[in-house]
Amino acid sequence: MNLVKKPVTGMKDVLPAEAELRNYVTDVIRRTYAAYGFRQIETPAVESLANLNSKQGGENEKLIFKILKRGEKLKLEEAREANDLTEEGLRYDLTVPLVRFYSAHQAELPAPFKALQMGPVWRADRPQKGRFRQFVQCDIDILGDATNLAEIELILATTRALANLEFKGFEVRIGDRRLLKAMASYAGFAEENYDEVFIILDKMDKIGTDGVRQELIDAGFARGAADKYLALFKELETKPGIEGIRYLSGILGDHIEAGAAEGLIEIIEGVESTKTADFALVFDPTLVRGMSYYTGTIFEIAMPEFGASAGGGGRYDKMVGKFTGQDVPACGFSIGFERILLLLQERGFRVPHDGERVAFLVEKGMPAEKLSGIFAEAEKSREAGNTVLVVRMNKNKKFQKDQLTAEGYTSIREFFKD
Amino acid sequence: MNLVKKPVTGMKDVLPAEAELRNYVTDVIRRTYAAYGFRQIETPAVESLANLNSKQGGENEKLIFKILKRGEKLKLEEAREANDLTEEGLRYDLTVPLVRFYSAHQAELPAPFKALQMGPVWRADRPQKGRFRQFVQCDIDILGDATNLAEIELILATTRALANLEFKGFEVRIGDRRLLKAMASYAGFAEENYDEVFIILDKMDKIGTDGVRQELIDAGFARGAADKYLALFKELETKPGIEGIRYLSGILGDHIEAGAAEGLIEIIEGVESTKTADFALVFDPTLVRGMSYYTGTIFEIAMPEFGASAGGGGRYDKMVGKFTGQDVPACGFSIGFERILLLLQERGFRVPHDGERVAFLVEKGMPAEKLSGIFAEAEKSREAGNTVLVVRMNKNKKFQKDQLTAEGYTSIREFFKD
Repeated sequence: MNLVKKPVTGMKDVLPAEAELRNYVTDVIRRTYAAYGFRQIETPAVESLANLNSKQGGENEKLIFKILKRGEKLKLEEAREANDLTEEGLRYDLTVPLVRFYSAHQAELPAPFKALQMGPVWRADRPQKGRFRQFVQCDIDILGDATNLAEIELILATTRALANLEFKGFEVRIGDRRLLKAMASYAGFAEENYDEVFIILDKMDKIGTDGVRQELIDAGFARGAADKYLALFKELETKPGIEGIRYLSGILGDHIEAGAAEGLIEIIEGVESTKTADFALVFDPTLVRGMSYYTGTIFEIAMPEFGASAGGGGRYDKMVGKFTGQDVPACGFSIGFERILLLLQERGFRVPHDGERVAFLVEKGMPAEKLSGIFAEAEKSREAGNTVLVVRMNKNKKFQKDQLTAEGYTSIREFFKD
Repeated sequence: MNLVKKPVTGMKDVLPAEAELRNYVTDVIRRTYAAYGFRQIETPAVESLANLNSKQGGENEKLIFKILKRGEKLKLEEAREANDLTEEGLRYDLTVPLVRFYSAHQAELPAPFKALQMGPVWRADRPQKGRFRQFVQCDIDILGDATNLAEIELILATTRALANLEFKGFEVRIGDRRLLKAMASYAGFAEENYDEVFIILDKMDKIGTDGVRQELIDAGFARGAADKYLALFKELETKPGIEGIRYLSGILGDHIEAGAAEGLIEIIEGVESTKTADFALVFDPTLVRGMSYYTGTIFEIAMPEFGASAGGGGRYDKMVGKFTGQDVPACGFSIGFERILLLLQERGFRVPHDGERVAFLVEKGMPAEKLSGIFAEAEKSREAGNTVLVVRMNKNKKFQKDQLTAEGYTSIREFFKD
């Protein structure tokens, strides 16, 4: 087999300038979340397929990279499908592993538990521009808190992290799966059709009210239900924010779970009155969020510069119970790490540096004593907080010096053997 | 399939206290190496099997986790072996990916290039205590420098990183594959047998001179060669360090590559006269290092508290050429990240914290306005550099407070709704 220079399909090498930015962003996020009492955990890259295929991952379950049982030859007669040969795969998100982790270690963890995870996930997606098969996710989750404290903390911490990365003027859109369901119920849709209705509703910002109405009818839903449903959204356009939630709470009656609307108002008021970052928290009745595991509040970050969402999350109170038989309230917020990174790169964001950056160019054949002196000087300067690169002098010194200047070395010293 | 709570066989979950230590160690190492001008890079977890199986990885090639081609059903008739179904696997080290990376991006990188890598690798090893199938490696490498500057910098930077983690009184053992070969050649072993001889020599510290002699004879080597070989090592026992290298240089004559002994002396003198960390650089003529890709200097870290090696590396000038057709001098030093971590844990090392750690316990049903006040106070304290955990008050408050104290919260405040 010939050696391959390129990274495998759909995955990428990270060069020094990008790695530096990734580390910087990671550090800022970690420090911010630590100040809120979130504690980092790590799970292995590999999970058992039983967990990965447990219908928690939605469409992502089709994208699992499966791993062959170690060292085993295939038993061809027995193996009907790849599934029979594997029992493990690479994680496609950090939520399924978190819930497994919590189920295994609950007794050793504080209650409530505030978790931070930052790490790579893998999806065998069709390769396309800007979309990779390995990418970093960055999630905070609060497990064991059924109160609104969880949502408020998640939103405050996430927006503070973004503010610390110099993002401002963005929106956090908030909704609630229970409101979403109540609105569908009120309009007359049957519960088994909610998911289909929500998939169509999710296109509202692209195709508008008329488009959604048409698609609902095309999908075979009754005109009456479609009209009643869309009239709600029309009405909400004139009643933004908390006013809209109060309006829904008033007319949805028995369709809505007790406390859902009030809870949402409390979260919005709680965040609005204490937030220190520059963003708007906006009630969005059309917010759907794809994952079926959400049971209550849902949120999403919208950046003005960025079409798609730059993060999101919500409450998923029924997932731990799938592992342990006993439900534990849970709520999480994920920052779109790779998108944030892309935005910072597009802005030409420069990572701040401490100290001076000095390069020592050393001519070949330097006598040992002289060399010792050079190294000693470099060590001393490093102790003083500077970056000192000791490097052999190239034949093409001009090119080497230009390269070093481009890398940010502001002082270049030359040492000759004579 | 039932959901599985435990991590997959041989891999582990990292709980908050360990994750904090891992982050701390990672930060110290990264900052130290950055001061020496090493620049971090990242490669994907997944590499093409062509590279992983290219005989650069020695025994590790037997331990590759192979990945199934995405979504492909097995073609049973055609598939004779797992190999036919896969073309990718998880990386088992960081050296093969680094060399691939360098081959692909050489034109965009400075020359010489000083690389830092920290990341997980995977090996399908038999599970055993303290040995995991996913673990972190931490390597620095200098590519494009054939001079001793590379070795000296690698040793100074690695030992400084260890010193910054409060390790002292350790040894760095140094040798050279060219000296090793010259000694075997001088004793009369044939070149094709060197690897076998070195595997036996590598046991010197366990079985002693007599044991090595016996094993050489048992393996069918001539008594004369074995005796001549071991006489060299006996002689070196009375001539430690540079004296021993000079002695070898004198008697090995044509067997030794020109400059090899002198180079080793220069490295030892260079490091000894400039080192700021508390360690000894010791010439070890019995040092072998397993990997066959080493072409010159080899080194290893020995910690007094730790039987096995806590890191190592060496020069591998022929590996880039396997990818590009053109050799590039290369030299690397790897810190045994997991072992360092284990030693710090055993010592009860505590990660230093900035600011105060305060917990706010909030009673359930707190009115919205009061809640806002609490959040606002927490935000203010965080801005002042403290960690503030806002968390709902549990029914068992005594237990919760004990838990928080154990987690390092020095101040706990309670907020009641009335």
